[in-house]
Amino acid sequence: MTSSAALTSLDRLSLNQATVNKLTVSEAVDLCVRHGIPAIGFWREHVARAGLAAAAATVQQAGLRVSSLCRGGFFTHADPGARQAAMADNKAAIAEAAALGTGTLVLVSGGLVPGSRDIGLARRMIADAIGELVPVAQAHGVRLGIEALHPMFAADRCVITRLGEALDLALQFPADAVGVVVDTYHVWWDAALLPDIARAGERIVSYQVCDWILPLPADTLLGRGHVGDGHIDFPPVTAAVAAAGYAGDIEVEIFNEAIWSAPPDETAATVRKRFPLVLPLRDPFGMVGGIAQPRAAELDG
Amino acid sequence: MTSSAALTSLDRLSLNQATVNKLTVSEAVDLCVRHGIPAIGFWREHVARAGLAAAAATVQQAGLRVSSLCRGGFFTHADPGARQAAMADNKAAIAEAAALGTGTLVLVSGGLVPGSRDIGLARRMIADAIGELVPVAQAHGVRLGIEALHPMFAADRCVITRLGEALDLALQFPADAVGVVVDTYHVWWDAALLPDIARAGERIVSYQVCDWILPLPADTLLGRGHVGDGHIDFPPVTAAVAAAGYAGDIEVEIFNEAIWSAPPDETAATVRKRFPLVLPLRDPFGMVGGIAQPRAAELDG
Repeated sequence: MTSSAALTSLDRLSLNQATVNKLTVSEAVDLCVRHGIPAIGFWREHVARAGLAAAAATVQQAGLRVSSLCRGGFFTHADPGARQAAMADNKAAIAEAAALGTGTLVLVSGGLVPGSRDIGLARRMIADAIGELVPVAQAHGVRLGIEALHPMFAADRCVITRLGEALDLALQFPADAVGVVVDTYHVWWDAALLPDIARAGERIVSYQVCDWILPLPADTLLGRGHVGDGHIDFPPVTAAVAAAGYAGDIEVEIFNEAIWSAPPDETAATVRKRFPLVLPLRDPFGMVGGIAQPRAAELDG
Repeated sequence: MTSSAALTSLDRLSLNQATVNKLTVSEAVDLCVRHGIPAIGFWREHVARAGLAAAAATVQQAGLRVSSLCRGGFFTHADPGARQAAMADNKAAIAEAAALGTGTLVLVSGGLVPGSRDIGLARRMIADAIGELVPVAQAHGVRLGIEALHPMFAADRCVITRLGEALDLALQFPADAVGVVVDTYHVWWDAALLPDIARAGERIVSYQVCDWILPLPADTLLGRGHVGDGHIDFPPVTAAVAAAGYAGDIEVEIFNEAIWSAPPDETAATVRKRFPLVLPLRDPFGMVGGIAQPRAAELDG
């Protein structure tokens, strides 16, 4: 996380690797360098393919920041063996985050326990698992970022469905170990979003953006759009995140089959061009919000 | 709404007409009679096809209760003419509900205003519209039921996404005019669901049930399942609704292309058989909750 007030808005742009999911670590890092994108968010499977040490060296030599590692979590298991494996995997993920030089491991906590409809049980399992990870996270200087996922993923991926719920969970643990992720795609619809961001304050460890587009595709995981192509009003969310004290990287993370199939340079160029919709370039008061927003068409033109 | 403590659980079953969407009013009423289902929830387009007076006569002669009329709402318009038309249509819907003998008009309030990403604007439009309808509802003895829809419908159908949000809106108006609908499909994932139901108390004007099944279909409106086929834990929700004081009909409302294509008698039989998963048949204390639940397979066998 960076916090210099001198940074201009593009200096805070991070490309989450999921946006260019077909690229290797090296290719994604090169893409960022080529497009003047100063940070990258990694995914563990890509890092594993490159090799952890090689991935860390690549990004360091390129001079990029690593804004986060995705992802830990999936804590909800009926089988004790599966539960133990998940805990071991999460501890490995924390160590990987530290090795890559990022202070944030994003958690997708898990859906209902297989064979069970007890959503309270799933929530308690997640709280227990995070508690077990706290000392490991502290030892590595990594914060766990609890991500609320959109409620359409509640049954199968994450029973934590609102930022406020993620925050209530995070607040049970030390602030240096557990925080929350604000991802516009998952939480934009929530009437309590802005007050919950304010309440989150220093607990915000990551701000991720992409747009809500319709119709949803057959695979609802892949229905995200470039910033500006959908229905989300970004400036109020950014303003709230900034007012809460978050001054770190802003990750553009888009799961979309068409974008994955597009030329990566085109994707990176669009990500860059659209970023002022999230974080305005010009702001006479050094704050986001309260100024006229460009439209997507103007930025692309 | 009925409130006799002597009713057994099947006496509170209502078949929402959307579950057998290909049937006319007469056919759906006959189906209920044939299967001993004592109440029906109507949809306006079916009622219009039958004729309002004819539909009212049909259901009255059959001796069924009308648990609700679906639906009013869709209040979010940029065009003043469209807004006026929506208000006129909602006033007509209130009168239709009264003519059909139901005290509940379900509202699906509307998504983002066309051309706008301002979700607060949409919410204010909805509040204004309901305020305008309150005296009309009171004059007809009909309560408007604000329904929170699942957040995946926030952009295009309903910006009110949580029961608590629906309730906060309802509480701005008199209790005899405005209440809330609890629909398991839309709100099951919410960590605040049970306390929000308790808080709703007498404001609950309808309890609708169907199950959350995966994967979501291409048309996400049609992804609902028979009670017991999915991931929702009904007894705690029913117990909370009962504890809040709601003793009215429980509507089974399922939008699902496969169920619409099934023989209606089969659908009605399944609805009946599965209903004990929502409202247990045997309960020594006269309360729901706290007793062993049957499984779907046992009820079907």
